[in-house]
Amino acid sequence: MGHSERRSGRETWPDLGVGEPPRLSELIGRALAEDLVGGDVTARAVVPRGRRARACVVARQDMVVCGSSVARDVFAFADSGTVVDVLLPDAARAVSGDVVMRLDGEAAALLAAERTALNLLQRACGVATLTSAYVDAAAGKVRVVDTRKTMPGLRALDRYAVRCGGGHNHRNDLGSGVLIKENHIRMAGGVGEAVRRAIAFAPHGLRIECEVNTLAQLTEAIDAGARFVMLDNMDDETIARAVDLAEGRVGLEVSGGVTLERLPTLAGLGVDLVSVGALTHSAPAADLSLLFDA
Amino acid sequence: MGHSERRSGRETWPDLGVGEPPRLSELIGRALAEDLVGGDVTARAVVPRGRRARACVVARQDMVVCGSSVARDVFAFADSGTVVDVLLPDAARAVSGDVVMRLDGEAAALLAAERTALNLLQRACGVATLTSAYVDAAAGKVRVVDTRKTMPGLRALDRYAVRCGGGHNHRNDLGSGVLIKENHIRMAGGVGEAVRRAIAFAPHGLRIECEVNTLAQLTEAIDAGARFVMLDNMDDETIARAVDLAEGRVGLEVSGGVTLERLPTLAGLGVDLVSVGALTHSAPAADLSLLFDA
Amino acid sequence: MGHSERRSGRETWPDLGVGEPPRLSELIGRALAEDLVGGDVTARAVVPRGRRARACVVARQDMVVCGSSVARDVFAFADSGTVVDVLLPDAARAVSGDVVMRLDGEAAALLAAERTALNLLQRACGVATLTSAYVDAAAGKVRVVDTRKTMPGLRALDRYAVRCGGGHNHRNDLGSGVLIKENHIRMAGGVGEAVRRAIAFAPHGLRIECEVNTLAQLTEAIDAGARFVMLDNMDDETIARAVDLAEGRVGLEVSGGVTLERLPTLAGLGVDLVSVGALTHSAPAADLSLLFDA
Amino acid sequence: MGHSERRSGRETWPDLGVGEPPRLSELIGRALAEDLVGGDVTARAVVPRGRRARACVVARQDMVVCGSSVARDVFAFADSGTVVDVLLPDAARAVSGDVVMRLDGEAAALLAAERTALNLLQRACGVATLTSAYVDAAAGKVRVVDTRKTMPGLRALDRYAVRCGGGHNHRNDLGSGVLIKENHIRMAGGVGEAVRRAIAFAPHGLRIECEVNTLAQLTEAIDAGARFVMLDNMDDETIARAVDLAEGRVGLEVSGGVTLERLPTLAGLGVDLVSVGALTHSAPAADLSLLFDA
Amino acid sequence: MGHSERRSGRETWPDLGVGEPPRLSELIGRALAEDLVGGDVTARAVVPRGRRARACVVARQDMVVCGSSVARDVFAFADSGTVVDVLLPDAARAVSGDVVMRLDGEAAALLAAERTALNLLQRACGVATLTSAYVDAAAGKVRVVDTRKTMPGLRALDRYAVRCGGGHNHRNDLGSGVLIKENHIRMAGGVGEAVRRAIAFAPHGLRIECEVNTLAQLTEAIDAGARFVMLDNMDDETIARAVDLAEGRVGLEVSGGVTLERLPTLAGLGVDLVSVGALTHSAPAADLSLLFDA
Amino acid sequence: MGHSERRSGRETWPDLGVGEPPRLSELIGRALAEDLVGGDVTARAVVPRGRRARACVVARQDMVVCGSSVARDVFAFADSGTVVDVLLPDAARAVSGDVVMRLDGEAAALLAAERTALNLLQRACGVATLTSAYVDAAAGKVRVVDTRKTMPGLRALDRYAVRCGGGHNHRNDLGSGVLIKENHIRMAGGVGEAVRRAIAFAPHGLRIECEVNTLAQLTEAIDAGARFVMLDNMDDETIARAVDLAEGRVGLEVSGGVTLERLPTLAGLGVDLVSVGALTHSAPAADLSLLFDA
Repeated sequence: MGHSERRSGRETWPDLGVGEPPRLSELIGRALAEDLVGGDVTARAVVPRGRRARACVVARQDMVVCGSSVARDVFAFADSGTVVDVLLPDAARAVSGDVVMRLDGEAAALLAAERTALNLLQRACGVATLTSAYVDAAAGKVRVVDTRKTMPGLRALDRYAVRCGGGHNHRNDLGSGVLIKENHIRMAGGVGEAVRRAIAFAPHGLRIECEVNTLAQLTEAIDAGARFVMLDNMDDETIARAVDLAEGRVGLEVSGGVTLERLPTLAGLGVDLVSVGALTHSAPAADLSLLFDA
Repeated sequence: MGHSERRSGRETWPDLGVGEPPRLSELIGRALAEDLVGGDVTARAVVPRGRRARACVVARQDMVVCGSSVARDVFAFADSGTVVDVLLPDAARAVSGDVVMRLDGEAAALLAAERTALNLLQRACGVATLTSAYVDAAAGKVRVVDTRKTMPGLRALDRYAVRCGGGHNHRNDLGSGVLIKENHIRMAGGVGEAVRRAIAFAPHGLRIECEVNTLAQLTEAIDAGARFVMLDNMDDETIARAVDLAEGRVGLEVSGGVTLERLPTLAGLGVDLVSVGALTHSAPAADLSLLFDA
Repeated sequence: MGHSERRSGRETWPDLGVGEPPRLSELIGRALAEDLVGGDVTARAVVPRGRRARACVVARQDMVVCGSSVARDVFAFADSGTVVDVLLPDAARAVSGDVVMRLDGEAAALLAAERTALNLLQRACGVATLTSAYVDAAAGKVRVVDTRKTMPGLRALDRYAVRCGGGHNHRNDLGSGVLIKENHIRMAGGVGEAVRRAIAFAPHGLRIECEVNTLAQLTEAIDAGARFVMLDNMDDETIARAVDLAEGRVGLEVSGGVTLERLPTLAGLGVDLVSVGALTHSAPAADLSLLFDA
Repeated sequence: MGHSERRSGRETWPDLGVGEPPRLSELIGRALAEDLVGGDVTARAVVPRGRRARACVVARQDMVVCGSSVARDVFAFADSGTVVDVLLPDAARAVSGDVVMRLDGEAAALLAAERTALNLLQRACGVATLTSAYVDAAAGKVRVVDTRKTMPGLRALDRYAVRCGGGHNHRNDLGSGVLIKENHIRMAGGVGEAVRRAIAFAPHGLRIECEVNTLAQLTEAIDAGARFVMLDNMDDETIARAVDLAEGRVGLEVSGGVTLERLPTLAGLGVDLVSVGALTHSAPAADLSLLFDA
Repeated sequence: MGHSERRSGRETWPDLGVGEPPRLSELIGRALAEDLVGGDVTARAVVPRGRRARACVVARQDMVVCGSSVARDVFAFADSGTVVDVLLPDAARAVSGDVVMRLDGEAAALLAAERTALNLLQRACGVATLTSAYVDAAAGKVRVVDTRKTMPGLRALDRYAVRCGGGHNHRNDLGSGVLIKENHIRMAGGVGEAVRRAIAFAPHGLRIECEVNTLAQLTEAIDAGARFVMLDNMDDETIARAVDLAEGRVGLEVSGGVTLERLPTLAGLGVDLVSVGALTHSAPAADLSLLFDA
Repeated sequence: MGHSERRSGRETWPDLGVGEPPRLSELIGRALAEDLVGGDVTARAVVPRGRRARACVVARQDMVVCGSSVARDVFAFADSGTVVDVLLPDAARAVSGDVVMRLDGEAAALLAAERTALNLLQRACGVATLTSAYVDAAAGKVRVVDTRKTMPGLRALDRYAVRCGGGHNHRNDLGSGVLIKENHIRMAGGVGEAVRRAIAFAPHGLRIECEVNTLAQLTEAIDAGARFVMLDNMDDETIARAVDLAEGRVGLEVSGGVTLERLPTLAGLGVDLVSVGALTHSAPAADLSLLFDA
């Protein structure tokens, strides 16, 4: 059973916009190097040379799958002759016990790549699964976006996992969005001045967004020409007043203290998006195993 | 207040064996590159050129500090003229509100490095803090060790964080320890044969350890010459019987299902070490902020 | 005479927004490697070991200076003991015969770095000087922006040179701005559909811009929610009608066929910016020499 | 129509000595990284996943083609499934409107690679086309050679383009030729002493060439054993006298002030080669476009 | 004649434990870069483009073959279309005149890769051949192991060559084995203290070995819990007494002054292994040539 | 005692032409990485943190010193605070027992860098020492040059070591010299044709050298315009006839079978240089140790 017959819990999910998985050959090379720099002494000593094996990666909890193409690349990197059959594609929902992919190749190569493949897979599935919970809680009433609080070196994978979990991406890096935060405001001498400088000097192509802590600052940001405003650590009541105040002249983002519990209420207040650092800084690993066939 | 006057909750912790923090210039470079590849457009536009600032990194929860030297290197990488004063060294305990380090430098450079430094710091502190909880639960009766389930690209930092949290390290990679696992045994045709092959062919310098699922396998491993045995996913009663059976002829490691709740009991059974994947695969980020002085 | 006493034709130029020169250690390393991979056999054979020299970099034409910090880094890379005194900072105007920087160091190191430093300098000055001509022609009535038609591997330097010449930067790369071009429109099935998809799926932080060839497309783009529209290869009359049609609801960019001759007229039509590929794809090298003191 | 039926204006050009195009995977990787580091957000959002397209690269001016294999590699790097058919090989002459290559592949991959491929192609064609003009002006009476004034990071491509334009290469780098210039002479204490040191200490395999500014220096260089002499910035009359003076004992190179206008005269003076920095430091980009089929 | 029909002097050698040849693409890339950074100017000028050739690598002395897969990768790197047929696999014995591999490919690519391939091959065969002499002298009575005195950058190849020659590997690096040497002992304050610290703080998975210079130190090391002891620069008589003293409680390694002449005697003294730095630091190159078919 | 008071057996050796030691930071980084990828577990466990030590590198045989600056860089890389005092500079002669350099730094850093520094030093000294023996045997009557048979990755160091031993360098790589060998001749269809093609197509700056096996080929090479001829594997008598035949019209190089025994005779035959592969492919390591002060 290949891709065309895959059993996917997301078959109605619109494909558009999720995009291809990122190409991670450098990350894969680094990750394999961490583990294999001195070779796999156990497999070399214990496994007869040329021995082949079949194995599968199994989900040991319910999860949104993410990273199967990355894991495939890891196994292929270790031995290009390994045959990998992905049964559950990225963004599919798996239940505990589901087989995510099947492998057929040299036993020593499978063993050498096992830990690295699983480490990447459990990370990506973990982020996608946590994101999916937030997106479910938002019930389609507000966009859930990630932050730049990603695992160092894994940003592209983390952001892809957020998309697989149904979330949207905030700016990728400091160069792909203007976001004026509290410290910038202090350095510039005020919300209005900061926004005006951004309009004058920022590269073309970027939206000007400004963080505010008070409704007065919100007004100041709008008057200065900001296109989006981040309401930082405000309670629901203040957020509701901010929505009224903005009158649709700017987009509104809520940041800080966005929990699964609070999200259903928050989602109904009329803001455009909520950003959640925990999606990528505190997602627990999903539980997956590699099992050799008997 | 510098290093010499640091307030450390671990001042009685023996320094020996924790070692220097790993040198992570490559990881730092990659992490900064992820965020700065297009420059920091906001700071460039908004912050007046040459503006200096003072700031501090503050703990927003109780934690074991780890990664302060790494964070210092990140700020220094962004601007070698930044002065960094670490108040709480690695392995120290911080309570919420403690200042971990103070910074003095170009505002634009501090802003450019902020997120990368915090991403590394929140990861390292998170792992150290979780490890510390396990070590406390072990109450000195058994060693708590990590696994190779580390974040891809961050293994050296993750392992250092485990040591800062009071844990020990298992093998660093597939080349620095012989660990015969279930799949190896299947490929070799049995526990005894696998252990004998390892003795014959593994590089000198490595201890031969073998995973077992049953007491019969334990006996077989000991007879074949294994030096350490990993008891995989056994309940406490079986573990107790394994300890009796081994009679001190081999070291014993418990792996699988080691939770904070179970650890106090487990620690008293007489095994030598327990390995916990969650230390590095599921540690939530510690909460830290960078605050500019008013 | 050091930085503090520099003679600059741009002393009234607002510093804000030009930003620091990019850090180009990787490019410098590659460029030096191209030239020095087999060592500098001539200097090794001919120049007595330890011989020191003084030299200066001289402008041989009128130009806007750019890249002096990069050149300084090249000389420092070749020998950290070389003393470099930059007399004309980036963005300053030089006239033919002006000394841009003075050097004092090991003769062999100066000779080894000479060509690489000049190659970078003549490129950066060339781009800045050409940009400056366009900016002068625009007479402050419209922004002159660059494109992604930069020299492969030199984008950061090219964009900095554009800023030093008084221009603005368009998006840095394909990830830091949404720009829907003719081919995207064809793939999406129309201007409106393309814009709507971009709003639905693009990362937060980016402005949605769409290229149009006709006034009908302009209307379609505005209606679909685009924030900026690029008028592609239109004549002045059509551009004027587009400005009327847009009524300030979107920003307008002119692209294609923007020459120095046409720019004065174009600048008065009411568009927001003009983008000029020639700034970076066809700037002739500025003429500079390294002269050893007698 | 493939390679075998190519329409080439140089079909009588001897293939020998032009050589294979350089392998530029590192440069291609860097160039793509500059543009794609944050992904292609527009294509991801706008182009339906899996959409395929046909496209062609078209010459928009008369030119000597160069870099088509490099462009092919760029498209293949972005998606190995893209089919590229090169219609006009390197060193062929194209007239405005000619199709240089045809492409068939995933639309998103073509769009992601488009700018990088064109940036490389327009550079290489630009250098080849300018070189060709100089070679035509030399009318076979003198060799036209490049200099080390190449674009940093692009030396291999620039030199290949010079060969495609009918020029020859001077030394590749400071290690592949001994060229004693004015500053070396000053450091060594004279032309004769510099040449003698070069003979004594330079690696085997390299020709000893010396730059001179006067006819007296020419004599001194010949007497000391130089094999080639560079006549620097001399007028035609002095060059003619230098040719007489040398009597064929050394090869002669003219450098400095070699323009297209002067070249026909210069070519007849009897020197062996003329070197032209402008071939690589000031070649305007050739005009090429990527057009998707309707 | 391919692998399956290979003529091997080691056909009775157990395959198990020798392992796959190391993957050396980075080393191969570096080695080729050293030689080809400026291209192969001779082949480009002299060899007609597209000319194909057949060639073979011939042993010019008796040797143990090692590195044939590495050499194959070098030729494939230079031109993936080159067909390489390895006649004598790694670990086989060749006599002078034997053909090790046959090649069929573009003449220019074979010439470009020739020196790099031979440089790697002559090194690997040299190490394997010297190791084989030591292993023969040991006559199966003691293990012959390498040291970390490998050629910088070539450790993986050197260690593989040692295995092909019938030797065993000592620890790969400073992280894959605890070996307390004289300087450590001095820093720790004694053999016993050093061993105890190692037991307390070293990562799990590594055997604790300690170097000793006297029999008193041997006793101290055993009492402190060392698992292996290195007898450093002892004469045969002292070694014999050490064997008696150890009574099998620890493994014993002899290091220092192990020559081919001394080895037969030494092998009978009852120690477990002898380590020989010369295997990798002083192995002369084996003599091999690349011959083009007439 | 520092550089100024160094005891050097070569104090009359002209400094000119030996040049600075190569910059080997990449090689040093790779070499240290090979050894330290998993950290130095022994030093971390055994050596008290912060412990300082003094040590010296001692020659254990007579040798020509080479690589002391490289070794210094290795120690500095491991800990920039280490103080290194080089007593015997490169190209000096040491006798057994001489101290080459003194070290003062953190004990753990010295131990971590020890093996890598010694591996580089013993290689460089080994090559310089062997070269010196050949140069002595040549007695100033002929130049002794190296070949491209260097250790992969170490070419720059190997070539520098040859110079320190009093030898000269042949071409550095395939791009820094035209050397037509037997296989090229076969591909081109003859000596004369090969030389003519080289003259037509090789880059400027390189001398055209051709290998010959017979005196008839020598004549053919001279007639075609070769500047240097390599006499391959000829006996002394044939070489003498070749010298007569050449009449000084070309330079002559002897290659193949050049031993220390044959060299005194060979040196008197009138050829210009002899090339010796063994200098770099079979030099035994020089014996050096690192000793900590008591």
